[in-house]
Amino acid sequence: MSEKFLLSSDSVRTSKPLTYAQYVTFREPLRLELGERLDEVTVCYETYGRLASDRSNAVLICHALSGDSHVAQHEKNDAPGWWDILVGPGKSIDTNKYFVICPNVLGGCRGTTGPNSLNPSTGKRYGRHFPTITIGDIVEVQKRLIDFLGIQKLYGVVGGSLGGQQVLCWADRHPDSSCGYVPIATASRLTSQSLAFDIVGRNAILQDPNFHEGQYYDYLHGPDTGLAIARMIGHITYLSRESMQIKFDADRNNPRDVPTAFEKRFSVGSYLGYQGDRFVERFDANSYLILTLAMDLFDQGATCEALSARIGKSKGRWLILSFTSDWLFPPEESWRLVEALVASGRKVSYCNVKSRYGHDSFLLEHDVEVYGGMIRAFLDNNGGSLSAETISVDTFSARTPLSGTASGFTEPGTPLHKNEKDSDARIGTDIRSGEVSGDRYRGKSGIGHGCSLQDPASIFHPDRLDYERILELIPPGSSVLDLGCGCGELLYRLKRAGYNALTGVELDEHAIISCTKLGLDIIYADLNRDLRLFGEASYDYVVLSRTLQSVLNIEGLIKEIIRIGHRAIVSFPNFAYYKLRRMLAEQGRSPESKGILRFKWYDTPNLRFFTIADFEDFCRERKISIHRKIAMDTEAGREVRDNPNRNADLSIFVISR
Amino acid sequence: MSEKFLLSSDSVRTSKPLTYAQYVTFREPLRLELGERLDEVTVCYETYGRLASDRSNAVLICHALSGDSHVAQHEKNDAPGWWDILVGPGKSIDTNKYFVICPNVLGGCRGTTGPNSLNPSTGKRYGRHFPTITIGDIVEVQKRLIDFLGIQKLYGVVGGSLGGQQVLCWADRHPDSSCGYVPIATASRLTSQSLAFDIVGRNAILQDPNFHEGQYYDYLHGPDTGLAIARMIGHITYLSRESMQIKFDADRNNPRDVPTAFEKRFSVGSYLGYQGDRFVERFDANSYLILTLAMDLFDQGATCEALSARIGKSKGRWLILSFTSDWLFPPEESWRLVEALVASGRKVSYCNVKSRYGHDSFLLEHDVEVYGGMIRAFLDNNGGSLSAETISVDTFSARTPLSGTASGFTEPGTPLHKNEKDSDARIGTDIRSGEVSGDRYRGKSGIGHGCSLQDPASIFHPDRLDYERILELIPPGSSVLDLGCGCGELLYRLKRAGYNALTGVELDEHAIISCTKLGLDIIYADLNRDLRLFGEASYDYVVLSRTLQSVLNIEGLIKEIIRIGHRAIVSFPNFAYYKLRRMLAEQGRSPESKGILRFKWYDTPNLRFFTIADFEDFCRERKISIHRKIAMDTEAGREVRDNPNRNADLSIFVISR
Repeated sequence: MSEKFLLSSDSVRTSKPLTYAQYVTFREPLRLELGERLDEVTVCYETYGRLASDRSNAVLICHALSGDSHVAQHEKNDAPGWWDILVGPGKSIDTNKYFVICPNVLGGCRGTTGPNSLNPSTGKRYGRHFPTITIGDIVEVQKRLIDFLGIQKLYGVVGGSLGGQQVLCWADRHPDSSCGYVPIATASRLTSQSLAFDIVGRNAILQDPNFHEGQYYDYLHGPDTGLAIARMIGHITYLSRESMQIKFDADRNNPRDVPTAFEKRFSVGSYLGYQGDRFVERFDANSYLILTLAMDLFDQGATCEALSARIGKSKGRWLILSFTSDWLFPPEESWRLVEALVASGRKVSYCNVKSRYGHDSFLLEHDVEVYGGMIRAFLDNNGGSLSAETISVDTFSARTPLSGTASGFTEPGTPLHKNEKDSDARIGTDIRSGEVSGDRYRGKSGIGHGCSLQDPASIFHPDRLDYERILELIPPGSSVLDLGCGCGELLYRLKRAGYNALTGVELDEHAIISCTKLGLDIIYADLNRDLRLFGEASYDYVVLSRTLQSVLNIEGLIKEIIRIGHRAIVSFPNFAYYKLRRMLAEQGRSPESKGILRFKWYDTPNLRFFTIADFEDFCRERKISIHRKIAMDTEAGREVRDNPNRNADLSIFVISR
Repeated sequence: MSEKFLLSSDSVRTSKPLTYAQYVTFREPLRLELGERLDEVTVCYETYGRLASDRSNAVLICHALSGDSHVAQHEKNDAPGWWDILVGPGKSIDTNKYFVICPNVLGGCRGTTGPNSLNPSTGKRYGRHFPTITIGDIVEVQKRLIDFLGIQKLYGVVGGSLGGQQVLCWADRHPDSSCGYVPIATASRLTSQSLAFDIVGRNAILQDPNFHEGQYYDYLHGPDTGLAIARMIGHITYLSRESMQIKFDADRNNPRDVPTAFEKRFSVGSYLGYQGDRFVERFDANSYLILTLAMDLFDQGATCEALSARIGKSKGRWLILSFTSDWLFPPEESWRLVEALVASGRKVSYCNVKSRYGHDSFLLEHDVEVYGGMIRAFLDNNGGSLSAETISVDTFSARTPLSGTASGFTEPGTPLHKNEKDSDARIGTDIRSGEVSGDRYRGKSGIGHGCSLQDPASIFHPDRLDYERILELIPPGSSVLDLGCGCGELLYRLKRAGYNALTGVELDEHAIISCTKLGLDIIYADLNRDLRLFGEASYDYVVLSRTLQSVLNIEGLIKEIIRIGHRAIVSFPNFAYYKLRRMLAEQGRSPESKGILRFKWYDTPNLRFFTIADFEDFCRERKISIHRKIAMDTEAGREVRDNPNRNADLSIFVISR
């Protein structure tokens, strides 16, 4: 074991040594981003799994502020790791497939060079003389380690919070370094609120009379009170209001009798006091100062343009995860990452995971089915080429042990474009005629088990009879944005047919997992609010399939889709279908059919009722070009030529500005 | 000036004396809630305006943690008060009308007895020997002051945050004490999150080596660092994430050059350092400990029942205000107060004011038009009897200077129930016949300027032709809950006719102000989510006028209204009106009429389309009793007897379980 890891500091004396830790010392001086330098750097790291002979399966895990290299247990009797729920054999980050590397960060206090290390040029601990470092410096040290391990390209870089900042920095500094990037619960810069909490924590340490200008290692006590106060503040920000309520509220006046000098009149007080005291035992105040400052200084730009210039260069695919109840790194900050990556044309998936547990959610079991499921699906399909010895690429079988979320499509049928010329020729303003057999539709809408789209009340019901026609309308090689893409059936069929610039938009978490499993890029976004994400004319085709009628702001949405797509394909039920007319006219009942309008008036996902003629008027009044109209009677299973506004229950329009 | 106010403590030495402060010392010992006692108590207070000879116009204002008695300027050259935006001649709390009293709290450090006062039994400052006090003790001292001033009943008690807790405590301890209670941005108990921040703040003070067990007054320095740290934490919690973003984010790396020992690398850091240092100059650390602990100990119960037993006894009317962006005293906590008061049958109005500025919103100018407007309207109409010398009760003229929110109704027409027997006799299952002239409606729907209901796209459009019929259906003396009550036209007409158990529900702030001006009780609540607020069979009638068709969860809402009301009156447009049938059947267009269904399909507030027959089916399937049906052709201005499902465009149902 390296001498660097022998922590004699009073404040970290009780830390257990890390049995499986490995060490490497780089003696080439490290020039730091802010101008100073370190003459040598030792890295403490742990690895899991087996590096493939072609070194293609390495996943780098970056830890958060108070983490270390011990991301997971190495064997049953090993100490628990901080991400055991996610990392291990058969788990989301599967160490049977991937070679996982987790280094302690530069500036930390768990083996990698930091303020409590000996400064080789003085023979004393750095203490407050340890230079101010940046996330970039942390990443440079990790890069040395990766090079040292002979890995040219990582399969993935994954990390949450401070670890997520490292992922973002990898993309910026080494854009060719990884096949996939997974920043979790993080941000390209802290909010002013989060920054403020860090500052108060540092003030508590710096003003502690036992700080001794950072050279407290030889004293009996370091700035233990200040560090504990900082930790208490941090701890509150890691939880959500709701999770604190759950944890403490029923029994708020019943503190645990913990041996602490801090106030313990309330339950939450004894908890904070205990957490503060325990943290002081395992963490070094100087590292806390150094690492929180690195976090606070991290700033990839305030604008989308600036941020794009940093992370938009990256070549790999992205999975971005945030948590709804995280107020330290709120979802809006992850959304900014999505915006910058989309603006740069990067392949990105995003989900804002519903969670009650705040920033810490990514370390907790509560929502691991969702976020772990996404990470697993993403890694299994992120486009990196794993050698056969470590992973059998069988993307479409249901491999995940997660209940209720597995999904697999049946093999798709015939190619989409038997006759491309014919397809192109069809673009026109006439409604096309022709019989389409009902069987033909049914045979192609196989959706796997567990996809939430099975819900018969969903507007995304499996019998999407319009898919076939929509697929034929999209010329080969087109880029496609599918709004309300569900489990990705349409996009997956396009993908299998060789299209590759495909993006889906959805709000359902399980649908997002399903899409991720199919290797699709899928973004959690609200059609009523979030479409400004996509640039003008950024897709050849935007598809809005049977969704318009359930949207409140029709005018806004139509405006957006013809801004984003060169062409937009819109399908919707026709409320003037003769059976519906008859039902209202003759029976005086709110129309409902056996087909696509089979919902009860009080329980329908449809909020807007309009007809083919209404939609044509709407387009005419706004000078929206109609390139193509297709009308269908889905009950009869045929395309409609004659008087579509009376005889069709479904229509498809191709429109543009 | 009382000797008690001569602050020789080093930490508060720079406080300016309060020129207009008055002092009274009560020499009768004060028994404290937790068992200890104070032998005498001095109260520092300020008053504004003139106490009426019948002493009916006194408004007590309770200050928050760091406030004092100086709520407003007394004259132009006086120091600014902490609530100058709200209190003064002609302002929301109008000192031309009201006699405003603002005492410094017990335990404070600005003149009223507190830890820095001399203990009469020792001749030394109390310091840490000052007993632990509660909000109840603070209120008892205020009660002594009110008694001393000869005031038997207050016209109102108003306060925000810690001040709001005092208002709640007044209602509990002295339920006959006030005509009106206005707790703002407060809670009956802190959330565990807010409690946690207070604890960390106290830990910072208590562990400061200059605390000297609280007897720091004779030292050069008190626990200044600890108090400043506590203040910094507090300050962050008073702001919202968004307001910090607005304040600091554009220029985050440009700190002001303030003379502070705290970190000032970032703009927000220099701000916090400055705020911390200034606070130390004007506040006493022991008071901070005492008052935050009183705040933390305040607990009127975790359940609705417990809370009802405390504040539900109060006799006065209530106005409860919260702010959407307040995360220290979040709106849910105000909602708990509303629940407890409604469960106790109290008269309560509530608004969750849209705000970006966090907990401090109630001290800031940004939203003062709304919350100040509500306080003004509430005080002007809270049912207290002011003597003519101080206020001319002219509730219905537009007195407020707030632009765009003044509202006044024209005198209502004929009494509602010319023939009550006839009215009762009408309860039955037959559709009633009879001509109703259009003029009769139009003459009675005068809505004042500025009420947002003027918006012609609103479903609450002035021409509420169904009001007249609905009014006739409600027997005299009935209690009525009007869901989606708009500016309160229907309720106000009932009120003028002598009904008095009337409650409205709305989401529009300006509509809420309008209702408050009319002396109505009005609760900010969402029909889709919040109706569990009202108990089973708690109203004789629940009115849902032309709102059902714009609600998503029809089934849930109908279930709720027949749970809450002995009877529910529901009016809705009939989609099977012959003109609408014809439009769909013959023109193939989404139906729209000249009347109540005059909206475009893509821009209508109506989300559910159903017919009289549909609604009857719906009720029959659920065994909901239909007591009465009225059908109207509003375009023709007449009631419909023959085939209402074809000939009526509007119908009114009286239903029950």
